[in-house]
Amino acid sequence: VTIFNSFLAQYWDSLISTINQVFLERKTRIENSELSHAHDMLSEFCTRGKMIRGNLLILTHNTYNGKNLQSAIQLGAAIEIIHSGALIHDDIMDNDEIRRGKPSLYASYVSHGKQSGIRDFNEYGRSIALVLGDYAFFIAKEIFARIEVDEETYRRIQLKFAETLQKVILGQFLDYDFGKKAGMPTDEDILEMYALKTASYSISLPLVLGGYLAHASEKDINLLDEFGKNLGIAFQIQDDVIGLLSTEKDTGKPIGSDIRENKKTLIRAFLEKEVKGDDKKILDALFKKSIIREEDIKKVIDMVSKYHIDKKIADIIESLSKKAHERMSQLSINSEYKTLFSKFIEYNQHRRS
Amino acid sequence: VTIFNSFLAQYWDSLISTINQVFLERKTRIENSELSHAHDMLSEFCTRGKMIRGNLLILTHNTYNGKNLQSAIQLGAAIEIIHSGALIHDDIMDNDEIRRGKPSLYASYVSHGKQSGIRDFNEYGRSIALVLGDYAFFIAKEIFARIEVDEETYRRIQLKFAETLQKVILGQFLDYDFGKKAGMPTDEDILEMYALKTASYSISLPLVLGGYLAHASEKDINLLDEFGKNLGIAFQIQDDVIGLLSTEKDTGKPIGSDIRENKKTLIRAFLEKEVKGDDKKILDALFKKSIIREEDIKKVIDMVSKYHIDKKIADIIESLSKKAHERMSQLSINSEYKTLFSKFIEYNQHRRS
Repeated sequence: VTIFNSFLAQYWDSLISTINQVFLERKTRIENSELSHAHDMLSEFCTRGKMIRGNLLILTHNTYNGKNLQSAIQLGAAIEIIHSGALIHDDIMDNDEIRRGKPSLYASYVSHGKQSGIRDFNEYGRSIALVLGDYAFFIAKEIFARIEVDEETYRRIQLKFAETLQKVILGQFLDYDFGKKAGMPTDEDILEMYALKTASYSISLPLVLGGYLAHASEKDINLLDEFGKNLGIAFQIQDDVIGLLSTEKDTGKPIGSDIRENKKTLIRAFLEKEVKGDDKKILDALFKKSIIREEDIKKVIDMVSKYHIDKKIADIIESLSKKAHERMSQLSINSEYKTLFSKFIEYNQHRRS
Repeated sequence: VTIFNSFLAQYWDSLISTINQVFLERKTRIENSELSHAHDMLSEFCTRGKMIRGNLLILTHNTYNGKNLQSAIQLGAAIEIIHSGALIHDDIMDNDEIRRGKPSLYASYVSHGKQSGIRDFNEYGRSIALVLGDYAFFIAKEIFARIEVDEETYRRIQLKFAETLQKVILGQFLDYDFGKKAGMPTDEDILEMYALKTASYSISLPLVLGGYLAHASEKDINLLDEFGKNLGIAFQIQDDVIGLLSTEKDTGKPIGSDIRENKKTLIRAFLEKEVKGDDKKILDALFKKSIIREEDIKKVIDMVSKYHIDKKIADIIESLSKKAHERMSQLSINSEYKTLFSKFIEYNQHRRS
C-alpha cells in the first residue's frame, strides 16, 4: 500500500498545477468579479481530491512505455475536473453540505449568496453550483479536444469520453431514483448501478485512456476495461463500507450519510434480507424516520456485524478484487507495474477514506 | 419571411426523426422502467422546439455545396439536443414551470414525483431534471464524436463544441447572477452577456459547424462567425421584446417572466436610465415587489412606449441586423442563399415567438 501511496504522490504536483493553470488561464480572460471569483472557487474545489483517477491514467500510460506524458497529465487533469463537476451536481441533488472535508460547492455558494444579501440564497447556491458543474464538464471537454495525438487515438478518446459520461449519468439517475422510491431494487440492479455510476469512469476510463495514449494492444485495452469494471465495483462497495463505518475525520463526510439519504446500497439490501424478528422492526422504523441520529447509525452498524453482513460484503470485495487481479495478471506489462496494480487492489481493500 | 419559414420546414422531419432515433436507440438498451420513461420525456422535450439551430447548420452546409448532408443532419440534431439540455438547466435555475407551451422538464418531474408518492417531490423534480440535462449534453457529445469527416474538420468540430459550450455557461452564469443582485450592470456588460449566452451558440455555432462540414474558406468561416454574433445579439434582444410584449399564446411562456425574475435585460437597463419623476418611483417600487401582477407588467409596457424605449431597442436590432447583413453580403455564396440569409435576418425582426 505504501508503494501505491507513493505512486499517487508522484504526479500529484503536476496534476494540481495543471488544474490550477486551466482555471487561471480562463480567469485572466474575464473582467466580471463574480465570475473571476467563481474560477478560484472551482480551482480550489477541483484540487481538493485524492487525484486517484488522474494518477491511474498516467500510471497506465507509463506502464505501456507511452511517449506522451504531457498528454497523459493533461487528460489526467481533465478527468479530475470532470469528477469534480459530477460531485458538484451530485451534492446539489443529495443536499450534501460537506465534501472532501469542507463545504460542498453549492453550500459555499449558499453562504456567499447570504453574505451578498441575496434573498433566496439557498436557490442561489444551488443554481450557481449547477452552472459551474456544467462549466467544469465543458472545460474538460476542451482539454480532450486539444489533445495532440494521432487521428485514430484522438477519435477513440473523444468517443470514450462521451460514452462513459453517459453511463455515469445513468448510474447517477438510478442511484438517486432508488433512494427516493419506497422498495428495494434487486442486488443485480444495485451492482448494475455501481458499474454505471462508479466503475465505468472512476477506474475503467482512466485505465483505458492511458492505454489508448500509449497504444496498448486491443487485447490489453479490453483487459484494462474489465480490470477496471471489477475493481470499480469493489471500489464503490468499499466506499459504502467507509460511508457507514468511518468517521468524518477520515472521510470528510458526515458519518452514515447513505442511511440519512435512504441510499439503496448493497449493505442496505443485505440488511433488508437478513435481519429478522425485533431487529427487523427496529430497522424498518429507523429507515422511516425523517431525522436519523448518531445512535440510529450505531444500531445499523451493530446489525451489520450481528448478521455477518460485514463478512458477506468483504467476501464480495475479495471476489471482485480477485477477478480484477486475474485480468491484470494477463496484461502484457512488466512485473514492476503488475506489483503497482496489485497494490492498488490492496489499497482499495484497506482504505478508510 | 415565408421563404425562411418554408426553409425551416424542409429538414424539420429529418431533425425530428433523428432526435427520436437517438433516444429510442438508448431506450432499447435499458431495462429500468423509470429510466426508460426518462428517454421518452427527453425525446418529447427535445422535439418540441422550433429547430432553428439545426436547420441553420444544414442550410449553411448546403450553401457551400457540402457533400455531407447526413453529418449535417446528425450535428443539427445534436445542437438541438444541447439546446434542450441548456433549457432544462435554465428552467431549474429560474424556476420556470412553462417551456415551449408545456410544463418544463423539471415541472413535469415535480408532478411525476408527486404521483409516485415521493416525499420531497419539488427536490425530486429539480434533481432528475438536472441529471437529464447533463445526459442531453453527453448524448450530443457522442453524436459529435461519431461524426464521419476528415481529420482536420473532425478536430475543429470537437474544439468548437467545447469552446462554445463554455461561453454559453459563462453567459448563463452572468445572466443569473445579474438577476439576483441589486444594481444594474452596464449596457456593455449586458451585451457581452448576450454575446456569450445566445449569439455564440444559437447562431454562430450552427453557421460555423455547417461551414466546417462543407469546407468553406477561412475567410467565409470568419464572416459566418461575425454574421452570427451580430444576428445572435439581435436575436436575444428580440427575445427580450417578445418576452415583454407577447402573450403566452404566442410564446408558450408566461407574459413578463423577465420582469418577474428581475432579469437585467437591455430594456430594463434603458428603463432605469430613461424613466423620470413619479414614473421612476412607480417603477422602483414595482421591481421590489415579491409578486408581480399582470397590471404591473402593463405599466412597464406603457413606460417602454412612453419613453420611446421600444424605438431605441428597435434601432439597436436594426443596426445589428445591418451589420449582420454586411458580413453576409461578403460571403462567397450564390444569391439564392444570400436571399435566404436575408430572410432569416428579417424573420428575426418580425417574429413574435
